[in-house]
Amino acid sequence: MMSHGCLKEPKEPNESQDKAIAQTIIELERAALVRWCSGDPSGYLEITAPDVVYFDPFIERRLDGLESLSDYYERLRGKISAERFEILHPAVQRSGDMAVLTFNFVSYGAHHFELRWNCTEVYRRDADSWRIIQSHWSFTKPSS
Amino acid sequence: MMSHGCLKEPKEPNESQDKAIAQTIIELERAALVRWCSGDPSGYLEITAPDVVYFDPFIERRLDGLESLSDYYERLRGKISAERFEILHPAVQRSGDMAVLTFNFVSYGAHHFELRWNCTEVYRRDADSWRIIQSHWSFTKPSS
Repeated sequence: MMSHGCLKEPKEPNESQDKAIAQTIIELERAALVRWCSGDPSGYLEITAPDVVYFDPFIERRLDGLESLSDYYERLRGKISAERFEILHPAVQRSGDMAVLTFNFVSYGAHHFELRWNCTEVYRRDADSWRIIQSHWSFTKPSS
Repeated sequence: MMSHGCLKEPKEPNESQDKAIAQTIIELERAALVRWCSGDPSGYLEITAPDVVYFDPFIERRLDGLESLSDYYERLRGKISAERFEILHPAVQRSGDMAVLTFNFVSYGAHHFELRWNCTEVYRRDADSWRIIQSHWSFTKPSS
């Protein structure tokens, strides 16, 4: 279809495009996690948008903005390690330039220590790059 | 501007439109929470999309789909109550037909019992109605 100009985006979902975007986003996340699990938070910081908002189980309230998140992550640099991890049943829901990635996550440390997580990452396409604008990490079934 | 037909959405953010949408979404959430805190999950179910995904601290893994969520919520009907609650510093990040609402939440029960939460709700505009497609509730600083 070579029409130009007044061309609306098709309303029908384009399955192969959706799959490609889902795969791109899952791979971005996986690559950031590989670096994270070796103590390097820069993998995440490099794909995070300036207006990011962030939750994890260790902070009193939502963190707002890349500067706050960078400060927080820099204090963790070199202190986190996991021998391996699993991303369980990742799902991507997309509309236009926003996509929501959700998954359960398991990280394995020394001495069979494992942690189980719930994770929601919202990505937004900014100038052709997908960037995280919202991160929510929580423990699966914490004791309180 | 009365142009019809081939009219693209303006690329510049429309601040008053953004504010109005943010307010709409926060009010949808607040109204659902009022009903939730009186034991009625239908407020949420009525604004939830068929493809919703859901996390909370009590389940082993992500719940997928409105039917699963309805089953889960129906078991809680009449069993939840809070005397009052607070939605703290709600923020809405929107791109097109998707909007991410995040906030910290405090619910107050009898005998000064309080629970503190992190919450992320992703809304999508389906046929002019905003619907929840992702819900992630977690405790703020749980003990493990």
